[in-house]
Amino acid sequence: MHPAQGFCYRAILRVKPLTGYTIRQAWIASETGYDTVDVQIEGGRIANIAPQLDPVGIVVDGRDKLLLPGFVNAHTHSSELWQRGAILPYPLELWLAELYDFAPADPEQVYLSAIGTAVETLLSGGTTVVDHLTIMPGQELETIGAAVKGYREAGIRAFVAPLIQDQSLPSSIPTGGTVQVYEPYARTAQETLEMMSEAIAQFHRPDDGIYIVMAPTGPQLCSDELFAGCNELSDRHGLCRHTHLLESKAQKLLAEEKYGCTAVEYLKRLEFLGPRTSLAHCVWLNDHDIQLLAATQSTVVHNPLSNLRLGSGIAPILKYRQAGVNVTFGCDGSASNDSQDLLEAIKIGSILHNVTDFDYRHWITPRQAVSMAALGGATGLGMQDQIGSLDVGKLADLVLYDLTSLSLLPRTDPIGLLVLGRPVQAVHSAWVGGRQVIADGNMTTVNVHQLRQELFARSQWAVDRQSPTRDALEARYRSVMGLQGD
Amino acid sequence: MHPAQGFCYRAILRVKPLTGYTIRQAWIASETGYDTVDVQIEGGRIANIAPQLDPVGIVVDGRDKLLLPGFVNAHTHSSELWQRGAILPYPLELWLAELYDFAPADPEQVYLSAIGTAVETLLSGGTTVVDHLTIMPGQELETIGAAVKGYREAGIRAFVAPLIQDQSLPSSIPTGGTVQVYEPYARTAQETLEMMSEAIAQFHRPDDGIYIVMAPTGPQLCSDELFAGCNELSDRHGLCRHTHLLESKAQKLLAEEKYGCTAVEYLKRLEFLGPRTSLAHCVWLNDHDIQLLAATQSTVVHNPLSNLRLGSGIAPILKYRQAGVNVTFGCDGSASNDSQDLLEAIKIGSILHNVTDFDYRHWITPRQAVSMAALGGATGLGMQDQIGSLDVGKLADLVLYDLTSLSLLPRTDPIGLLVLGRPVQAVHSAWVGGRQVIADGNMTTVNVHQLRQELFARSQWAVDRQSPTRDALEARYRSVMGLQGD
Repeated sequence: MHPAQGFCYRAILRVKPLTGYTIRQAWIASETGYDTVDVQIEGGRIANIAPQLDPVGIVVDGRDKLLLPGFVNAHTHSSELWQRGAILPYPLELWLAELYDFAPADPEQVYLSAIGTAVETLLSGGTTVVDHLTIMPGQELETIGAAVKGYREAGIRAFVAPLIQDQSLPSSIPTGGTVQVYEPYARTAQETLEMMSEAIAQFHRPDDGIYIVMAPTGPQLCSDELFAGCNELSDRHGLCRHTHLLESKAQKLLAEEKYGCTAVEYLKRLEFLGPRTSLAHCVWLNDHDIQLLAATQSTVVHNPLSNLRLGSGIAPILKYRQAGVNVTFGCDGSASNDSQDLLEAIKIGSILHNVTDFDYRHWITPRQAVSMAALGGATGLGMQDQIGSLDVGKLADLVLYDLTSLSLLPRTDPIGLLVLGRPVQAVHSAWVGGRQVIADGNMTTVNVHQLRQELFARSQWAVDRQSPTRDALEARYRSVMGLQGD
Repeated sequence: MHPAQGFCYRAILRVKPLTGYTIRQAWIASETGYDTVDVQIEGGRIANIAPQLDPVGIVVDGRDKLLLPGFVNAHTHSSELWQRGAILPYPLELWLAELYDFAPADPEQVYLSAIGTAVETLLSGGTTVVDHLTIMPGQELETIGAAVKGYREAGIRAFVAPLIQDQSLPSSIPTGGTVQVYEPYARTAQETLEMMSEAIAQFHRPDDGIYIVMAPTGPQLCSDELFAGCNELSDRHGLCRHTHLLESKAQKLLAEEKYGCTAVEYLKRLEFLGPRTSLAHCVWLNDHDIQLLAATQSTVVHNPLSNLRLGSGIAPILKYRQAGVNVTFGCDGSASNDSQDLLEAIKIGSILHNVTDFDYRHWITPRQAVSMAALGGATGLGMQDQIGSLDVGKLADLVLYDLTSLSLLPRTDPIGLLVLGRPVQAVHSAWVGGRQVIADGNMTTVNVHQLRQELFARSQWAVDRQSPTRDALEARYRSVMGLQGD
């Protein structure tokens, strides 16, 4: 079924036109404590914040609720939703082999997993998603179009970053000095860049909250030519840049083999780094690499759950913060997490680093975590003037948390409970660009019951499945990584 | 208000007498896959498991649901619920100082936090809780009684382990060679042991699912006399033993100062270790210590969230498993977690260790994690013949998960989704000793709406609070731990 003819949630969205709101008597964070204020939303933006305002538009009771700027789910791969829970504990390179063996092949699935990703992100405090979107060979524009359609209907702000490469998967594993010959990749760099030009023309609509991002998979799978072309399109259209960077030890070894320098030095040489460049993972960087990220004002996207699940390592996040590098959080794809709960990524991404530095004065506080997730995420997308904080004139990407949820009780410190606890059904309302997408804890844009039925109907139980590509790569992987046995 | 006169949920419980059930067509785990079976519960136990059974008692539709043995929340401190979200990132010793400064002083609070702990544990797949219960000086038996009352009403299987010690908090910080004089503790060892004898007489009721445990706080705060008395009462009444063991680096340093050996060698010498002894944390053990745990068949309770939150370190769980040590999971108290979601502890407690060993063949699989949480927990309590697996004749401590929850979709591998995902509202039904405590996703024993109101009413927002005890200890802590500045 073509996505345009498929299952459509838009009917629900249409009954919620952009209107004005006054959130009354909500808690917002002040410098060290909290204030109680009214917040007005008009024309999609924050129009006013003051202790007492005349109500405009729809009045929302903010009492016993905490209002925060929406967070950014700054790195995910939406269509991995179809494989969450399926892949046993394997490191990145072998996990990827299985992921590729079972990738969805129908744009309708991409449409549904974009909606699922949006729903879980919104219900956990995120109002923006960066989707490093796996695109189907021969159906590239259909894939992008299906994800864009899903995000438009769900009403989330979406940075759609097609995952492009021009080298095949086996070339991402270090050779260990052996001679390896690889199949050419399905698309050349030039074909890929032409496809991306068309994608930009068709789908890049910042005023509608849909942004195309230039997002090569990573130095392990892309040529210099592809990176150069991404820079060129990014400059011409004012697009953000995004890539994977040094997620695994194997990638560190490969960069040394392939480029004779670190992957960060290589990206610096290619002029890919900069203030609108966000880099997923950044686990295996040295101190000089960190200085390069700081100097270029690049953003690190920390994906703590997938880094643990895939055994990639613990990214040196406290060092990044001390060096002045902007850091934010991502869920990463659902097959390596295996969820899209942004509050989980923020919690684990904060507390994980306490075991890396005995001096607790360097640890991330809950308030810092909130700022990293909101303003940090906005900064990585060049949107720090538009979203990421509660300031008059900014776009109204807002989330109102119900402080009477069992998971946020008893009353102590609202942000402490939100970040360090495990909030369940805690989002009462959410707005994206002033459009309400959650009300009274329920999605207004998506029929979640129907979504569950669709996801159920289009999937089947997959237990103990075999992956031929992984089987083909495993012996070489174990040898190169110095693991005993084969 | 005395707990006996207080807020009471028992009225709801009374309308659900022990009865028979037949769960029809549920999924259960087989050796490597799943089977679909009917399960009969009679007389509080699993009476039959077969593909097709004649229904007895109440019929529960098990289709599209996964039936697992209930998990054990094998280490918590229920009354910390009152301080969750409140304490900023501090290491254990300084965090404890603040915790003590704001400890609840009313048994009614203990009753409510026991119910809250039970509800969150049950709703995340746990049917047994081990509560290392902080007891109020001068109200020891009232505290224990309040927790027991809460657990009875909630209907969870509860191992109530009063936290006993005979040394004061400052003595838990290494001296670093300085001379320190400590205030005597509020109770002597002898007084404490007499109180425990009375607690056993009043509250130890295994047939009702309430078990008293001998649980000295840890070697850092207890005398040899107190440990010896615990052993004696444990032997006389057949009680489990539980203690904190080497949670922090400071405790490792202190044991060397205090005993001239490791804390494990010390506990071995005291004859505290054994097959009904469970040990919370076990972060700072050496290889010889691990051998001692294996040889004594002691159980490690892994509390990954609090170990991260307090910066205690990563417990060497893969080494324990390789050495044949039984390992299970705990949430730890809500002020160091800051939740009681057992599925979160199981997920993070599984994937965290993938970064400690490059060989993925040593990593914990989702099925292994389930076994650790269920049978591993039962084993640590000497209950492996009674609970922890789906076997005819065992007590019916069972949890039925709804595989149509959005968080468990699309369909892939049910146990993979449950352990690696972030299940939300996934528990459809639960039974403890054959009594149904959750039905259709709702607690049958507790009015959760009323509980929320009580927790709200009895608490107040606590932002940026000061802790005099922490202030008094911080300079010494920083000096002994080699941290710069004071």
